[in-house]
Amino acid sequence: MLRWLTAGESHGPALVGIIEGLPAGIAISSQDVRDALARRRLGYGRGARMKFEQDQVSFMGGVRHGVTQGGPVAIEVGNTEWPKWEKVMNPDAVDPEELASMARNAPLTRPRPGHADFTGMQKYGFDDARPVLERASARETAARVALGSVAANFLAQLGVELVSHTVSVGTVASPEGARLPRAADVRALDADPLRCFDTDTSEAMVAEVDAAHKEGETLGGIVEVLAYNLPPGLGSYVHWDRRLDARLAGALMGIQAIKGVEVGDGFLTASRRGSAAHDEIVRGEDGVIDRSGNKAGGIEGGMSIGDVLRVRAAMKPIATVPRALRTIDTATGEATTAHHQRSDVCAVPAAGVVAEAMVALVLAQAMLEKFGGDSLTEVKRNLENYLGAIPQNLGSVRLP
Amino acid sequence: MLRWLTAGESHGPALVGIIEGLPAGIAISSQDVRDALARRRLGYGRGARMKFEQDQVSFMGGVRHGVTQGGPVAIEVGNTEWPKWEKVMNPDAVDPEELASMARNAPLTRPRPGHADFTGMQKYGFDDARPVLERASARETAARVALGSVAANFLAQLGVELVSHTVSVGTVASPEGARLPRAADVRALDADPLRCFDTDTSEAMVAEVDAAHKEGETLGGIVEVLAYNLPPGLGSYVHWDRRLDARLAGALMGIQAIKGVEVGDGFLTASRRGSAAHDEIVRGEDGVIDRSGNKAGGIEGGMSIGDVLRVRAAMKPIATVPRALRTIDTATGEATTAHHQRSDVCAVPAAGVVAEAMVALVLAQAMLEKFGGDSLTEVKRNLENYLGAIPQNLGSVRLP
Amino acid sequence: MLRWLTAGESHGPALVGIIEGLPAGIAISSQDVRDALARRRLGYGRGARMKFEQDQVSFMGGVRHGVTQGGPVAIEVGNTEWPKWEKVMNPDAVDPEELASMARNAPLTRPRPGHADFTGMQKYGFDDARPVLERASARETAARVALGSVAANFLAQLGVELVSHTVSVGTVASPEGARLPRAADVRALDADPLRCFDTDTSEAMVAEVDAAHKEGETLGGIVEVLAYNLPPGLGSYVHWDRRLDARLAGALMGIQAIKGVEVGDGFLTASRRGSAAHDEIVRGEDGVIDRSGNKAGGIEGGMSIGDVLRVRAAMKPIATVPRALRTIDTATGEATTAHHQRSDVCAVPAAGVVAEAMVALVLAQAMLEKFGGDSLTEVKRNLENYLGAIPQNLGSVRLP
Amino acid sequence: MLRWLTAGESHGPALVGIIEGLPAGIAISSQDVRDALARRRLGYGRGARMKFEQDQVSFMGGVRHGVTQGGPVAIEVGNTEWPKWEKVMNPDAVDPEELASMARNAPLTRPRPGHADFTGMQKYGFDDARPVLERASARETAARVALGSVAANFLAQLGVELVSHTVSVGTVASPEGARLPRAADVRALDADPLRCFDTDTSEAMVAEVDAAHKEGETLGGIVEVLAYNLPPGLGSYVHWDRRLDARLAGALMGIQAIKGVEVGDGFLTASRRGSAAHDEIVRGEDGVIDRSGNKAGGIEGGMSIGDVLRVRAAMKPIATVPRALRTIDTATGEATTAHHQRSDVCAVPAAGVVAEAMVALVLAQAMLEKFGGDSLTEVKRNLENYLGAIPQNLGSVRLP
Repeated sequence: MLRWLTAGESHGPALVGIIEGLPAGIAISSQDVRDALARRRLGYGRGARMKFEQDQVSFMGGVRHGVTQGGPVAIEVGNTEWPKWEKVMNPDAVDPEELASMARNAPLTRPRPGHADFTGMQKYGFDDARPVLERASARETAARVALGSVAANFLAQLGVELVSHTVSVGTVASPEGARLPRAADVRALDADPLRCFDTDTSEAMVAEVDAAHKEGETLGGIVEVLAYNLPPGLGSYVHWDRRLDARLAGALMGIQAIKGVEVGDGFLTASRRGSAAHDEIVRGEDGVIDRSGNKAGGIEGGMSIGDVLRVRAAMKPIATVPRALRTIDTATGEATTAHHQRSDVCAVPAAGVVAEAMVALVLAQAMLEKFGGDSLTEVKRNLENYLGAIPQNLGSVRLP
Repeated sequence: MLRWLTAGESHGPALVGIIEGLPAGIAISSQDVRDALARRRLGYGRGARMKFEQDQVSFMGGVRHGVTQGGPVAIEVGNTEWPKWEKVMNPDAVDPEELASMARNAPLTRPRPGHADFTGMQKYGFDDARPVLERASARETAARVALGSVAANFLAQLGVELVSHTVSVGTVASPEGARLPRAADVRALDADPLRCFDTDTSEAMVAEVDAAHKEGETLGGIVEVLAYNLPPGLGSYVHWDRRLDARLAGALMGIQAIKGVEVGDGFLTASRRGSAAHDEIVRGEDGVIDRSGNKAGGIEGGMSIGDVLRVRAAMKPIATVPRALRTIDTATGEATTAHHQRSDVCAVPAAGVVAEAMVALVLAQAMLEKFGGDSLTEVKRNLENYLGAIPQNLGSVRLP
Repeated sequence: MLRWLTAGESHGPALVGIIEGLPAGIAISSQDVRDALARRRLGYGRGARMKFEQDQVSFMGGVRHGVTQGGPVAIEVGNTEWPKWEKVMNPDAVDPEELASMARNAPLTRPRPGHADFTGMQKYGFDDARPVLERASARETAARVALGSVAANFLAQLGVELVSHTVSVGTVASPEGARLPRAADVRALDADPLRCFDTDTSEAMVAEVDAAHKEGETLGGIVEVLAYNLPPGLGSYVHWDRRLDARLAGALMGIQAIKGVEVGDGFLTASRRGSAAHDEIVRGEDGVIDRSGNKAGGIEGGMSIGDVLRVRAAMKPIATVPRALRTIDTATGEATTAHHQRSDVCAVPAAGVVAEAMVALVLAQAMLEKFGGDSLTEVKRNLENYLGAIPQNLGSVRLP
Repeated sequence: MLRWLTAGESHGPALVGIIEGLPAGIAISSQDVRDALARRRLGYGRGARMKFEQDQVSFMGGVRHGVTQGGPVAIEVGNTEWPKWEKVMNPDAVDPEELASMARNAPLTRPRPGHADFTGMQKYGFDDARPVLERASARETAARVALGSVAANFLAQLGVELVSHTVSVGTVASPEGARLPRAADVRALDADPLRCFDTDTSEAMVAEVDAAHKEGETLGGIVEVLAYNLPPGLGSYVHWDRRLDARLAGALMGIQAIKGVEVGDGFLTASRRGSAAHDEIVRGEDGVIDRSGNKAGGIEGGMSIGDVLRVRAAMKPIATVPRALRTIDTATGEATTAHHQRSDVCAVPAAGVVAEAMVALVLAQAMLEKFGGDSLTEVKRNLENYLGAIPQNLGSVRLP
């Protein structure tokens, strides 16, 4: 039972995440977390905030001398802009006169289409969208990425490698059947303006972003997360909510602005005929049982099959469009245009990093469910013994 | 906290489902459940089993004189074929000699690609795929449909209407922007061979199924579930796993053979520009606040917005392809072709009914989380008072 | 993640339980379940129902040829009295005139103190206590005992033995410091009228029951559950809800009529001084590290310590007292006396069996959390490797 | 679904808690949290640490201008001693030579009986008890008290009042049947050296603590938590883990050093006869339905009945006994005596405050489950409408 909670507002003092249920013995440093967070700020087409945003990372619990201790891990990601927001976002009461004089504190009453603003006000009974957008903001994903980096270290120390990349931006998409990036390619991916593995496509994406920027537009796109070296048998077919695909779908769709999720060839598979849609079971040249392809994305019957896991998420364009959208002023009831809070054109590269974090969390959870264990050593021993006990005629894993 | 479990094997004595956390006072009859199960057997291109399969429905708890009692509701769906399987699937030990003489009991050692068979054997340590396919079988969805019918009655008694329909089969798809079916259209949908709302498309789908059948092929497709009259504010942006879209995605991806899920325009939205991707907030002619469209599928910020909920699921073609796929015999290690267990060409219409059930369960859960309540009267009172308390300038609901 | 649900009413067609998350490979027969249920009917001082009650046990899923299959296990415990109740408790609508003529169907409007009746009517909006008492009835514990018997088999096959016994009935209590019964003593315990391990005490208990019976009274008492051969390290100190004592306390207090729970010497420990309250860590004659006593009941820091687990539950006297208690008739508002539904004097021996079932379920859950595993073989291998890896200077387990 | 996690070590930089699922609109200030934490340090017989310990409280999320915002609330309780521990407990790697020179960093290899030390080392594979005691320490309860104070404010704003007090210390106990303290008495209770409501008993307790201190001993005791003005119907009889008593028992037993829990008269009830053990249902002089007593502790059938809730927890004496207990040095395997980490004689008054916090959390959870709601206004409206809809003949609540 691995579980986690995040807290904090976009302009609050900090984001905080707690993850509970990790084994002892995972090597992790605050620099690892900072590196993960730096990747979340990558990408061509990001606004000013991404540039000055400096993530102040502190472990508040669960890690000692670079190693997890078995207890809950708490990470705080401080907000360097906090002094500017200290009055407006103060947890404690602030002199009302002082607040009244601050433009920054004025109620936000022009809810933005495509955001949580309007419904959030209805649901929680607010007459100001501020509390909604503060928490609904994608800034919150920094806490997920921080927690995800601990999960990713855990997986890496079990031999599992995660890679995320951008598959499309707006109407520009990577060619079908392109080679999949591997762990060794991550540095190159992170250096690419859009975290796209195909150089030509990346250039076209840059042009797409430039065009959208000029026209006061925003862009969405599709990201893909890959996991290498997963053992077969994570997740299960025995109950719907144990299925690895169900959990991954929930985790990915739970990211701000994601509107679609697919596993392997996903929607494309729905249009194929049966004989062309499945990965046959064949014996490789080295005698190990293998698949004829990876259309299934490494998941069958709700379980990892030992092949590369491959999942995709579709992100809608940023809803805060410079060409402002129509809305209603909730103070006056008059038609107006929406608040404009930030100026990114495209956040797809960041979405890949966030998606990778969510996949890491779900896979770490599935790993612990299958193998138990309270220390990295114990989890690893259980994993290796499981793989070693699979009979030869069912042997689909190449042990190192 | 609405939760449910299902149990039972494809050829076992029965499927059983328990749903816990429903309020008292929901009207439900065993005929309602039977009707829901009958809809799961609909569809052109189904094999022999669907025809003779008669669902014997019994409430074992939680319902008295046609009304829920506040306790867990248990439903049993008996298997009319049980006498044929009683030895092979007997829970208790059976004379080994007798078993040895039964062809039906022979170990299944040619795992089918695209199914749970192979990995299930690795995971659970089986040398026979029988236990895997018995539970992984889509037959299990009958239990979900049974439980979903109780959830659907609950929602209906709160005014929420659910509709599911087939959007594509193989390469044949409904035209973009077609009118959405409503509750009044369900009878017609159920009468259509493929539960498709567009007559011309339906005819083309029938032809597609016929062609596939002739070629020993199977087909997948896409289904859509709609929910009308949802209040705004189900689900929440405050934590990823409270998001209604995340929960729906998990529930839909948790259906056998589903490989993709989208909300509203989903993947299409990822290719649109910002100004064209969002539903603006406008005032309708009657003064009620409305949206300029439904691209978002009725969910923003992880919450229902009070508009029509619209989610889609992509089903891969049935993996048991008559033109048998390559596999390995796990008893001998030799290359062979897969077991062939059933003869449906296309199960997409049924997938729509199952998807509708899963959506009903998730929405019922979200409803209870937002409104609490231990009786239908109490839930309804809380819902109505919530809607009534929304200020006029935030009023997006047309109260009857 | 082992979880379970029960459903069914006292006079409904059956009780149903589903347990999800058990590994494949556990040996279990329907006779094992019947035997467990028969033990629940034991005990001097039970009323007529216990005598004629015959539990019709059927596995509806999850077990084949005497072995669990990895999927959810469903058990149905049929009600042999169902024909008598078929109209009154029918899930579907029944002709109102026919119902009106049946005395058995008359609304129960004299809620019994000490039962759920009165508050249940307030909570669920009933004007009849029938639906409350049908589900609140201790009859429901039959489903827990059935599920618990599967958990107990799982534990037994890992080497863990469970024993329950009666420690006190009314004011008659076993002597302090008496020898604890072991697995070998269970047959004798079950043969004792009150499942008490001390013969003299048992005789005094019989006299106490007789006296109470004569006076129109009922009796409560205290039961104890013991678990032998648990590994150290089940549960954890890292989070409150991972503590094994917390989970056991919740599970025991969740049994009908239980008002107190203690671990080891429990309340007595609170009055001791520190130097006398703890079990010192010493080396046994065979070199294995041991404890100087078992005041802690085998749990320290929320974890099993490898010593005998010992927990107690205090049961209040049966609330349906023959000397009827005062109440209000909710139909008329007049003062009256309570319904009298059954005639047991004392159900403490049964409570021991139910408590044992709940302990089995919680321990099975903790075992799977620590060791993972999808087959009995895998769980056992992980358990043994864990024990084998404990360094000699921390070695407190005598491996067989 | 109200849930919470805590993190942090006894000598780490801070304790952190996140609570997720609270409605918007609860008034809470950091001073409220500080006040709650100050009460946790109360009590005669505490060691030096309690005196200098200053809790630095910061809300990191979820609260703005003194009001909850609907999102997760994060609280950080800083450790003023951190500079002293910064090297020894640093999350990141520290120069090994520097560490080697620090006495404070020496491995703890003499595990203390009665603590998590020994089993924790076995479970997590440590050769140093430091990581175990850092997290298992009762210092962690500060995070629970902080979170509990938010829950308590929520309850208070719904009209529910919580009171905790000390019922016994060692062998000194309050007289049976003493008047129960109410909210108005909390100030006096907090001023009492042992938070005991009976002055004479309190004096005897002080003498007991003094005597124990002189003899190098420690003391345990019993605390009681009361809740006034609860509505009837929190929790439910329909499933064991919905029972309010089960949840409270789990929450209380999940506190460090608690070995027993009871509801109302608890263990005493088990020795009573039926006619004397239950609270009859009678009509009060004002026509409102009432109970003849409060032996049940305000819970019947797993539900609050609208009467005063009354639960008790038994705390064992502090396990770090100045007269050191026997143990084994895990580095050498030699017999030795245990580490001595702190010098409190008695922490029972603090345990009352922690128990009160856990009760607050469980009741807040039950309240939200029954009434739903996303703002305090909505929860309150649903609660009031529920109470108002109870028919007169079932009316057991005195509405203000």
